[in-house]
Amino acid sequence: MSISEIAAAAQSASNRLAAIETDIKNRALARIGEALRQRSVEIVSANEEDLAVAEKDRLAAPLLKRLKFDREKIDQVVAGIESLIALDDPVGRTIAATELDAGLELHKVSCPIGVIGVVFESRPDALVQISTLCLKSGNAVLLKGGSEAAQTNRILTDVIAEASEEAGLPAGWIQLLQTREDVAAMLALDEYIDLVVPRGSNEFVRYIMNNTNIPVLGHADGICHVYVDGDADLEMAMNVAVDSKCQYVAVCNAAETLLVDSKIAGEFLPRVKTTLESKGVELRGCARTEEIVDVTPAGEADWSTEYLDNILSIKVVDGLDAAIEHVNRYGSGHTDAIVTANKDTAERFMALVDSANVFWNCSTRFSDGFRYGLGAEVGISTNKIHARGPVGLEGLVIYKWKLLGSGQIVADYSGPNPKKFTHRKISE
Amino acid sequence: MSISEIAAAAQSASNRLAAIETDIKNRALARIGEALRQRSVEIVSANEEDLAVAEKDRLAAPLLKRLKFDREKIDQVVAGIESLIALDDPVGRTIAATELDAGLELHKVSCPIGVIGVVFESRPDALVQISTLCLKSGNAVLLKGGSEAAQTNRILTDVIAEASEEAGLPAGWIQLLQTREDVAAMLALDEYIDLVVPRGSNEFVRYIMNNTNIPVLGHADGICHVYVDGDADLEMAMNVAVDSKCQYVAVCNAAETLLVDSKIAGEFLPRVKTTLESKGVELRGCARTEEIVDVTPAGEADWSTEYLDNILSIKVVDGLDAAIEHVNRYGSGHTDAIVTANKDTAERFMALVDSANVFWNCSTRFSDGFRYGLGAEVGISTNKIHARGPVGLEGLVIYKWKLLGSGQIVADYSGPNPKKFTHRKISE
Repeated sequence: MSISEIAAAAQSASNRLAAIETDIKNRALARIGEALRQRSVEIVSANEEDLAVAEKDRLAAPLLKRLKFDREKIDQVVAGIESLIALDDPVGRTIAATELDAGLELHKVSCPIGVIGVVFESRPDALVQISTLCLKSGNAVLLKGGSEAAQTNRILTDVIAEASEEAGLPAGWIQLLQTREDVAAMLALDEYIDLVVPRGSNEFVRYIMNNTNIPVLGHADGICHVYVDGDADLEMAMNVAVDSKCQYVAVCNAAETLLVDSKIAGEFLPRVKTTLESKGVELRGCARTEEIVDVTPAGEADWSTEYLDNILSIKVVDGLDAAIEHVNRYGSGHTDAIVTANKDTAERFMALVDSANVFWNCSTRFSDGFRYGLGAEVGISTNKIHARGPVGLEGLVIYKWKLLGSGQIVADYSGPNPKKFTHRKISE
Repeated sequence: MSISEIAAAAQSASNRLAAIETDIKNRALARIGEALRQRSVEIVSANEEDLAVAEKDRLAAPLLKRLKFDREKIDQVVAGIESLIALDDPVGRTIAATELDAGLELHKVSCPIGVIGVVFESRPDALVQISTLCLKSGNAVLLKGGSEAAQTNRILTDVIAEASEEAGLPAGWIQLLQTREDVAAMLALDEYIDLVVPRGSNEFVRYIMNNTNIPVLGHADGICHVYVDGDADLEMAMNVAVDSKCQYVAVCNAAETLLVDSKIAGEFLPRVKTTLESKGVELRGCARTEEIVDVTPAGEADWSTEYLDNILSIKVVDGLDAAIEHVNRYGSGHTDAIVTANKDTAERFMALVDSANVFWNCSTRFSDGFRYGLGAEVGISTNKIHARGPVGLEGLVIYKWKLLGSGQIVADYSGPNPKKFTHRKISE
C-alpha cells in the first residue's frame, strides 16, 4: 500500500472508531496486554535482533538501554495498559449543554481527533504507550519509530493490531510506517491526517514543523530556567537549582539557565558554584556573575542554548521583571521555575512567564505526564493552542456540537416577530 | 514600523495583558463603548468616505450593506460590548487541580493564547467584535480588514487603542495592518504570532492555510448536508431542507446537498421539488433522483461544490450508512443534519459524521455563535484541534500548568526508597 492508501485506510477506521463503546475499547486494551505477554518470546527475540545490529553499529550505551525490550519492559507496558483501562473514557463527555429553545438542545461533546501521525525515538515501550493512548481516545494512528527498533516495532504493531481487531476494532486503525521517505509522504497528507506528534531531536521536530500543513503537537527546545529571587530561602533555592540541572541532564525539562536576583547574588553564587562544580557542572556566567565568582564567561548564544549536558549558564538580574523578561525572550516556553518566599512575586512570575509549565519553589524536572498524574503522555507540547505541557489522553480529543431539535428552522428566529432563544444552561 | 516590529510590539503587549485583571479589562471595554459613541460623527464620516469610493467602484449592493457603519451599527456593536462585559472572564479559570504530594499542588489554569492575527472581510462591525473578544480574553491582535473599509478600520482601531490604553491596557495590543503584503509578511512571523484567523472566501482561507507555519483557525468550504432518513416526518424534513437551503444562501452553514433515503425518495422528492423550485432553487440530481423527478443531472463535481447560491444537489442513498459515507467523503466537516424520528439512527449519524456541528431534526443554519449563546464569534472552525464550530471567547484561551511547591525536588521521588505521589484531585 502507498502511504496515501495507508492514511486513507486509517481515516476510514477512525470514522468507525469514533462510535466504538468504552467497553469494546477497554476489552481491546486488555486483549493487547494478554497478547503482549503471550507472544513475549517472539517479541524479545525480535528485539534481540535489533539489539545485535545496534551493538554491531556501536550504538551508545544509553541508546541501547532505551532500545532494549525484555520481559521486564513488557511487564511495565502491560501495567501501563492496565492503568489506562482504569481511566475514564475521554470520548463522549458532555462538556457543556444549553437549551436554545424549548425542544432544541445544544450539547458540546468530546470526540476523537481522527488520525494521528506519531514519529518517535528508538524506544519500543513508546510504541505501546502511544498506540494504546490513541486507542483509548478513539484515534487511528500512523507510527514511525526509530529504525534501530525496526524488528521490535514490526512485531509490536502486529500484536497490537491483531489483538485489537479480535476485540472488535476496525482494521487499519494502527499502521506502521517504514522509512524516512514514508514520514515525508505522510506530512503531505493533510487530507487524511489531523495531527502530527514528533518526538526526538530539536532539528527533527523543527523539520517536521516546517514541512507540513498538518497541525503539529510537540516541542523543539527545552530551555528551562530557575530564577532565584531576592526573597528566596537560599537553601531551598540551592536544592531546586541542583535538582533542576543535575537530576537528569539529557532531558527537555532540565534547567539550562540560572537567573539570580542581584540582591542575593553575592551570597548565593559562591555557594551554588561550590555545589554544582562538585557535581561536575560547568558554569558559564554573565559579566556580573564573573565579578562575584570565577566562571567561564557566557556569550549571547548561551542564553539560547539547550545544553542537555552538565553545563549551566548563570545570569544576574535586577529583580523579578528582569527575570521575566529574560525568560520570555530566551526561553522556549517549556518549564520555568521561581524560588521565592514572597507569594505575590511568585504569582506575578507565574502569570507573566509565557510557558507551558510555571513552577514556584520546586524543580523544573516535575513537568512530566506521569508526575502530573495524567498517566502516560504522548509528549510535551510548547504549542500555544489545543494542548500545552505534558499531553495525555485529554490532549487527544476535541469536541463536536450536537444540536437536538424537533423541527426548528432559523426563519422562525429572524424577521418580524422572531422567536427568542432561551440560552438556558442545562445542568448535567 | 515594519510588520516584524509591529508583531514584536504586540507580543510584548500580550505578555503584559496576560496578567491584567478582569476589572481593568472590563473598564477598558466600557471605555471603548463610550468612545465609539462619543466619536460617532468622525467614525460615520470616515465610513462615508469608504462608501463613496465603493459606490464609485460599483461594489455590489450586499457588500455595500456590509460596509456601511452608521449610528445604528455603532449602537449594535456597543450593545455587543456590553454583553461581553457581562460574560465571565475566560482567563484565570482553574480547569483542574491535583495535589501531587503534601505541599505540592498542580493547577491547570486558563490563560490567553498570546498574539492573534485576524484577516477579515469588509465589515467594520467585525473589527470591533474581534478586537473586543481578543481584549476580554487577554490576547493582543493584529487586524487586517478588507481594503474597502480602510478609513473606517483606521479610525475604529485608533478609537479602540486610545480608549483601552486610557483604561490601563498596554500600548500595541491592537494594531492595524494596511496591505496584502503586510498579511504575507505576518504569515512568516511564527516567532511572534500564535494563531491566525482568516475569514473570507474559500480561496483566501486556503491561501492562508498553505502559506504559514502559524496555526490557523477557520474554515474554507462549508459543504453542508441534510439527510432525510426513511423514518423522517416528511413535513418536518421539508421545512428543515428548505430553511437549510433558502433562509440565507450566501453563507457557510447553508445546505448544498440533500441526501434522501431511497425508502421515501418516491414520496419525498416530488414534494420537495415543487416547494424548492417555487422558491427559485435549481435542483441537480443523481441518476436515481432523475428517475423520480425531472431535474438537471448532477455530476461528480456537484458533491464537492459550495454553491453559496440558489442551487441544491440531491442524491438518493440506501439508508443511514450510505448517507454517513457520503457526508464524510464529500462534506467539509462544517454542519450536517439528519431528519429522522428514530433516536438510534440520529445518534449513529451524530457519532459517525465527522463534522464540527451535527444536527438532528433542525436546520443547518443554526450553527452560529450567537444562536449557540456563545456571544459574538471570531469565526467558525472546521479544525480538528483546539476549537471546532463557532469560536467565541473560549476558543481564544489555552492553559498553563502552575506547580506550587515548598522546595520539592525530583531526586526525592526517584531512586531507592522514593517518595510517592498522592495524585489527589483537589476540589474547587
